[in-house]
Amino acid sequence: IIGSWARLNGLFVKAWKFGRSDPRKVVFAAKMGLALTLLSVLIFLKVPFKDLGTHAVWALLTVVVIFEFSIGATLSKGFNRALGTLSAGGLALGMAALAVTTGELEEVVIVISIFITGFLATFIKLYPTMKPYEYGFRVFLLTYCFIMVSGYRTREFIETAVTRFLLIALGAGVGLVVNICIYPIWAGEDLHNLVAKNFASVANSLEGCVTGYLQCVAYDRIPSKILTYQALEDPMYSGYRTAVEATSQEETLLGFAIWEPPHGPYKNFKYPWKNYVKVSGALRHCAFTVMALHGCVLSEIQAPQDLRQVFGRQLQRIGTEGAKVLRELGNRVKTMTKLDPDDILLEVHEAAEQLQMMIDQRSYLLVNSESWVGVKRPENIGETLDGLHVVEGQNKHLEAKSLSETVLDLNSVQIPWNWYNRNSNAGINSFNSATVGSPEMILEKQMSWPSQRNSFQGDGVPGVEESNTYESARALSLATYASLLIEFAARLQNLVDSFKELSEKANFREPVVELVAE
Amino acid sequence: IIGSWARLNGLFVKAWKFGRSDPRKVVFAAKMGLALTLLSVLIFLKVPFKDLGTHAVWALLTVVVIFEFSIGATLSKGFNRALGTLSAGGLALGMAALAVTTGELEEVVIVISIFITGFLATFIKLYPTMKPYEYGFRVFLLTYCFIMVSGYRTREFIETAVTRFLLIALGAGVGLVVNICIYPIWAGEDLHNLVAKNFASVANSLEGCVTGYLQCVAYDRIPSKILTYQALEDPMYSGYRTAVEATSQEETLLGFAIWEPPHGPYKNFKYPWKNYVKVSGALRHCAFTVMALHGCVLSEIQAPQDLRQVFGRQLQRIGTEGAKVLRELGNRVKTMTKLDPDDILLEVHEAAEQLQMMIDQRSYLLVNSESWVGVKRPENIGETLDGLHVVEGQNKHLEAKSLSETVLDLNSVQIPWNWYNRNSNAGINSFNSATVGSPEMILEKQMSWPSQRNSFQGDGVPGVEESNTYESARALSLATYASLLIEFAARLQNLVDSFKELSEKANFREPVVELVAE
Repeated sequence: IIGSWARLNGLFVKAWKFGRSDPRKVVFAAKMGLALTLLSVLIFLKVPFKDLGTHAVWALLTVVVIFEFSIGATLSKGFNRALGTLSAGGLALGMAALAVTTGELEEVVIVISIFITGFLATFIKLYPTMKPYEYGFRVFLLTYCFIMVSGYRTREFIETAVTRFLLIALGAGVGLVVNICIYPIWAGEDLHNLVAKNFASVANSLEGCVTGYLQCVAYDRIPSKILTYQALEDPMYSGYRTAVEATSQEETLLGFAIWEPPHGPYKNFKYPWKNYVKVSGALRHCAFTVMALHGCVLSEIQAPQDLRQVFGRQLQRIGTEGAKVLRELGNRVKTMTKLDPDDILLEVHEAAEQLQMMIDQRSYLLVNSESWVGVKRPENIGETLDGLHVVEGQNKHLEAKSLSETVLDLNSVQIPWNWYNRNSNAGINSFNSATVGSPEMILEKQMSWPSQRNSFQGDGVPGVEESNTYESARALSLATYASLLIEFAARLQNLVDSFKELSEKANFREPVVELVAE
Repeated sequence: IIGSWARLNGLFVKAWKFGRSDPRKVVFAAKMGLALTLLSVLIFLKVPFKDLGTHAVWALLTVVVIFEFSIGATLSKGFNRALGTLSAGGLALGMAALAVTTGELEEVVIVISIFITGFLATFIKLYPTMKPYEYGFRVFLLTYCFIMVSGYRTREFIETAVTRFLLIALGAGVGLVVNICIYPIWAGEDLHNLVAKNFASVANSLEGCVTGYLQCVAYDRIPSKILTYQALEDPMYSGYRTAVEATSQEETLLGFAIWEPPHGPYKNFKYPWKNYVKVSGALRHCAFTVMALHGCVLSEIQAPQDLRQVFGRQLQRIGTEGAKVLRELGNRVKTMTKLDPDDILLEVHEAAEQLQMMIDQRSYLLVNSESWVGVKRPENIGETLDGLHVVEGQNKHLEAKSLSETVLDLNSVQIPWNWYNRNSNAGINSFNSATVGSPEMILEKQMSWPSQRNSFQGDGVPGVEESNTYESARALSLATYASLLIEFAARLQNLVDSFKELSEKANFREPVVELVAE
């Protein structure tokens, strides 16, 4: 007994938490209870019709069926039900009149007409564009069969149809009034919030992927849920997955939102709900590059940590600025505010250009030059440090901020490049950590290809070559990561354009800054 | 009249085509018509009950509602309906007995009980894990209210409940027998075919992306549907989009398939339907890299055509072999056959390794060495052609096939490298087409950094630098494309593993080759 009491208690706690997480669900449940109660009171009081007894089921059925969570869904179902009932009623009355004239064959005609109607209605409702009216076809079929069958017995075709229709109208009336007038829940609002939330999800994922990459977060064993694209709580993964998976939910909400009358902040008569889905689609297009960035984290081929640090500041900056842009856009969607006149993408584009330039200048780090050119290592560290100043000089034409960052990067990298040292066999000169970031230190070069090739063939262990290839792939994977990040920055433009289109069509308010300026 | 006749004719043609495209839909519609016809005949003949007239609606309603396209959906709805009706009937009878004892307060008790039941049933059905039973809760609520309300009027609580239950059982019986015994349509089969079809879609997309990339197919203007991730007929795009978007459809089919009894080729009692979805998830994980490859085609930064041709053969080989593997796996899923004992991934992995090695050896093509090292162009073409033979010698330790391919590649690239020539200002030596693919030709190198830097600062137009950066980004984008393709090849392993798990659990038959060997 104590055990079951504890379980019941646990159930209550669960229900309480569930109710707290979305109080609208509690309200909705109460509204449903209220609508049913009202209807049964009306039936008990025999208002507004006298003889409700046996046909009361129609009113109850209508309430139970059309009482959906959102107003849009309720209206759409109500419309389907009304259309299905009315058209089926009309058709059935016509067919009944026809059947009566056939005399003896009446039953046969009725049965055949039921078969034909059943076949056609079912066939048409399976047609893809008919999907929103699926429920209407069901109601049509039910009404038609009911009127034909029960009308035949009672010979009161018209009365059956009319009573049924009146009771459905009663049920629909009660349902609609309670659902719309008391604390209405709008699908449009849900869609709006869902789109805004997607921005934050992708931003989190992006930040997670960039920070994780720079910290060399690696999965010891990649969770099989990621490998089979199932839901999983993972800071890098869940964010973009949520945004990508929201498609079907958005489609559903869009289907309901277009049924809703103007309300609250959505005042336009033809509110551009479609554009919310479009913005979300553009966001998804960005999320796909975040997904590809995550792919780099998941990949077997991992860039060496030291190398990541060389470009760390630039990578991080794009990540941070990109996430900032996403959050800002999400916020603007949420608060329905237009963008400020100045370019929101300035910072992130600048960061992307800086990374691009840096990669250009340091691209020797990304390729395994051993495979094609010999490089001698510098004699001592002192020269390297001198070299830093040379770099400073060289970079003078970049803006000041970027310059100081460059120097900081160089200072931070003093870890030995095991990567090169490890492969310093086969007669190739290796260079060590000190060389990194200071191309000037490559003081001497040998045109040693033919000799190298010979030595390669001499002690040419395939293992060495393979490991070279692997190391080269590791370094290049950083280039891949960087270009994906730059691609992400480029795709933001498209997202901003979509947002601007939405903000124009939906008449978002001007940002506060502008109001002050005016 | 002629116009409307033409439209009607067009409608017929459309319906005919729709029916031809999936004859099962025609069959299903006919089955629906048949079930309704059978039921109305039973009602006319007053079999098996005498007094069916007014309550006939319950049987009709049940058929219309539970008659779903697939057997799984029908059984699941039927179960929900049965459970909802029975539990609500029991509860209602209990409550009715209780209400009668309260005497005058009877109506009040009934109304309050309706409110509480309505509230609880609606609240619980909104709980996420209760989603498959949503319909059951609706039926529960409807039955409860109906018995309470109409029982109160007629004082025949038990009779109301029993009649209703018998009629629902009649309707369900007719519906189930017709739907299951005549040409059953299985959700499991749909799931099976959907998963197999996804393989072909992704394979098409992959081939399209690789071939298109090598032919430098570029979008003059990227369709806005791609930018907002909407459906579009595009050989590269639609394939992977279909596979990625299939998630919700697969979930739905899985939800129905688990209701279906063993049938046809799915003989196990607990058939591993979940594993089909898992395999599809692993396929999706591969499709994401195809998506990223398509991203390279969409990107603003495009690798120069000549450069693509250098690696063309290798890229194409991975594409072709990868698509072959996907199609083969799709075929095995479709025919439910295990994999042959030899490694299906051998070819594609070899192709990936070859590409990786080639990139390693030619990585100087991917970086803009001008930014960090001066390269002098060779004196004449003759030497270059000699160089080819040198390459031949150098590559002797690679296997013969790869060697010949390498040579072919070199021969095919004789297009001038506008890319380098264009930037041959700022005192940097350019090298021309002949150099491509023949590192040996870089006969002379200058340690010219400081002087170059000075000249950079002298006439250092930022434009030159920017264009250099852009050109370097273009070349590196090929590296990105290549690593994504290699990543795709790597992810195939996971897909093959998922398939093997499925083929074990689902008891796929052994491949024919093995049977012959035994």
